[in-house]
Amino acid sequence: MSKPTETERCIESLIAVFQKYSGKDGNSCQLSKTEFLTFMNTELAAFTKNQKDPGVLDRMMKKLDLNSDGQLDFQEFLNLIGGLAVACHDSFLKSTQKRF
Amino acid sequence: MSKPTETERCIESLIAVFQKYSGKDGNSCQLSKTEFLTFMNTELAAFTKNQKDPGVLDRMMKKLDLNSDGQLDFQEFLNLIGGLAVACHDSFLKSTQKRF
Repeated sequence: MSKPTETERCIESLIAVFQKYSGKDGNSCQLSKTEFLTFMNTELAAFTKNQKDPGVLDRMMKKLDLNSDGQLDFQEFLNLIGGLAVACHDSFLKSTQKRF
Repeated sequence: MSKPTETERCIESLIAVFQKYSGKDGNSCQLSKTEFLTFMNTELAAFTKNQKDPGVLDRMMKKLDLNSDGQLDFQEFLNLIGGLAVACHDSFLKSTQKRF
């Protein structure tokens, strides 16, 4: 086996992180609300601790839970990561446009 | 600054990989067809070299290019990563179900 590329490592990480948090209670292929909150407050604490509105995580969970089953499956979880990545990417583009 | 979490590192990686390949020619915020092929054959060579159908990358590009502008923006690129991650995750679930 050759060394994995950065993209392969990233795909592996996304699966590993999802399994780590979704395996904590109930259905191990889904993130429950509690597991989602644990994930957000552990992995994305830099984001959550800056939110002044206490309802923001509730609203995020509702918005991400496309089939409204009260759980996030892997695809719904990826939409969260994608949304955050797009927001980071946009803010990076804005900061470089300001600079030049 | 504390050490980034695995999820934060992953989001950073996705942005860095996209910028690395999209910056090679033309619009640096978009992956052209050539850049997409370079990305696939470099970062995901384990996937591409197992494809017997030479048209598979062409069809992937067309399917990912939601607004049909001949380029992939960051959101369209994330859909590719998400699709691959879901496929890997499903095949992992199937392989564990077979085993137990």
